[in-house]
Amino acid sequence: MDDNENDLQSIGEAELIKRITKSFKNKNKSTVIDIGDDAALLKFNKTNITISQDILVEGVHFDLSYVPLKHLGYKSVVVNISDIISMNVKPSHILVSIAVSNRFRIKALEELYEGIKLACSYYNVDLIGGDTTSSNTGLMVSVTCIGNTESKKITERSGAEEGDLLVVSGDLGSAYMGLQVLEREKKVFEVNPNSQPDLNNYTYCIQRQLKPEARVDIINHLEELKITPTSMIDISDGLSSEINHLSNSSSISFHIYEDNIPISEETKKVCDEFKLSHSVAYLNGGEDYELLFTVSKRHEKKINDSEFLTVIGSCVKKKDDNCMITSLGQKININSSGWDSFNKKD
Amino acid sequence: MDDNENDLQSIGEAELIKRITKSFKNKNKSTVIDIGDDAALLKFNKTNITISQDILVEGVHFDLSYVPLKHLGYKSVVVNISDIISMNVKPSHILVSIAVSNRFRIKALEELYEGIKLACSYYNVDLIGGDTTSSNTGLMVSVTCIGNTESKKITERSGAEEGDLLVVSGDLGSAYMGLQVLEREKKVFEVNPNSQPDLNNYTYCIQRQLKPEARVDIINHLEELKITPTSMIDISDGLSSEINHLSNSSSISFHIYEDNIPISEETKKVCDEFKLSHSVAYLNGGEDYELLFTVSKRHEKKINDSEFLTVIGSCVKKKDDNCMITSLGQKININSSGWDSFNKKD
Repeated sequence: MDDNENDLQSIGEAELIKRITKSFKNKNKSTVIDIGDDAALLKFNKTNITISQDILVEGVHFDLSYVPLKHLGYKSVVVNISDIISMNVKPSHILVSIAVSNRFRIKALEELYEGIKLACSYYNVDLIGGDTTSSNTGLMVSVTCIGNTESKKITERSGAEEGDLLVVSGDLGSAYMGLQVLEREKKVFEVNPNSQPDLNNYTYCIQRQLKPEARVDIINHLEELKITPTSMIDISDGLSSEINHLSNSSSISFHIYEDNIPISEETKKVCDEFKLSHSVAYLNGGEDYELLFTVSKRHEKKINDSEFLTVIGSCVKKKDDNCMITSLGQKININSSGWDSFNKKD
Repeated sequence: MDDNENDLQSIGEAELIKRITKSFKNKNKSTVIDIGDDAALLKFNKTNITISQDILVEGVHFDLSYVPLKHLGYKSVVVNISDIISMNVKPSHILVSIAVSNRFRIKALEELYEGIKLACSYYNVDLIGGDTTSSNTGLMVSVTCIGNTESKKITERSGAEEGDLLVVSGDLGSAYMGLQVLEREKKVFEVNPNSQPDLNNYTYCIQRQLKPEARVDIINHLEELKITPTSMIDISDGLSSEINHLSNSSSISFHIYEDNIPISEETKKVCDEFKLSHSVAYLNGGEDYELLFTVSKRHEKKINDSEFLTVIGSCVKKKDDNCMITSLGQKININSSGWDSFNKKD
């Protein structure tokens, strides 16, 4: 074996997970979905329990030089809630574990938990446990989120069918551009600590980066519209990565239309200022926590009439590649180059 | 406020958790037990779900210079399973998240998951999810464990009553002495990397440190004996710390008898070799993962007849302090000086 093949950097997170968990065998009949979807699914009598766990690491997932601890607490809950919501289930409980170095003061942890409390309150989620320990360096936050439902309308990544429409909530690319602005301001500050940044032109992008929301309103909206998606995922690592996940799980391919991708005016302006193609922001950026899902074509009118949803493409036979049709009619292959913590691009 | 009072080191983990979570309010009627027991308890129709989450940090909870990764994987599952068992519930599912620096090779993570798989297989637990991400330094493992039961015999920390017997499974202090041996060998190795340690006299203690087991056999045994404990906790931070937890939760005090504490012959010998009082090992040591519980006095004969269980004391009125009666009849106050990651003593 080539020595490089033994490096964590040589394989992505998905491949790593596949390798280290391939020989595990389930023994409990309550286990319905294990590794490989946004959340696991357990079934006890009538009750379906969805459960997911994430870990956020200082210096990898967040930079405390511009992320306030209260925002970090809020966001660390939101990213987990989003995984439960993307199964079409409402979150109900969380456990939060932190490992924290002695350089933090109690006051700092109170700020972090203030943000966690705000998210719990906003999303009607109870904090039921966790662990608090020291670390030698920095801060780590691990959150487990649980949702429960008696409904059978649980949506996996695997149900998309040929002819279905591909739909996205909200708009894309703003959280990534917010990150670019914050990173730039950090560099300016390092050179001139007295600089007073004027961030008025970036408020939407920065808010989307620092205080994202999980789209529980969208699953309520879909319920009102009597639409059950055939497959669903949340956009945490960028549109191209999530499209590839749905594609692999559903054994289907996707064509998306560049002109249909919803992008805010501010995001477009910030892309232009940074001389970045809009497509880099929405295809590879991530952290928007919007919902990406497929629905039967018969719901087309209802989706088009909704101010919160946009049809961005359709499901085609698997033999075709996932691709984006540009404004000029060109077909561009979409490969999965979303954010991967083992292969940081920036 | 005194500046010191703002330090994490100035307050213990329990006080920190109390401070940062005191203003959280539950909103879901499924929440039965939240923060403050070994595991949280949720109730959905007939099904009771217990759930706990721990985080293990390199350099704080384990030292990879003498802990093989396979053992670490096994132990990180066991310590969580033990929290579920101490609620008198059998574990069924786990989620494992790791944050790992690029200095680790894929092969190393495969070893870690080999240990996790072994524990899953031994305890009939399914691995259903988690997260895998990079870290800037070292390895962190966060495990969430879930148990489920329709039984009403869930045992909390809070049910002990005056006159109940205090019982412990197995023997105590060995895991702590195993740690002392491993730490000593590490120092020897640092001075002379060619030394070949003879660890034959320490096999039991080292095994208890590196590959502890969660006492699922004890809850099966109690079921056979038709005994439901009135309160229960697992011994992760040392007997004195756990006694104080039961005491606070049950509003009761405990008298324990030094002569009754079960200690293995090897552990006694290792204590003597290290010139450590036996009581330091079992009162303050921790990591034995034995079960500490209270039962009604009417079960005294059944407990005394069991080869796995030892009565070590009894429950008295709260106004009395928790104390140990020595061989010479002296009363020694037991304060909670168990292991606290924010106040490492060694």
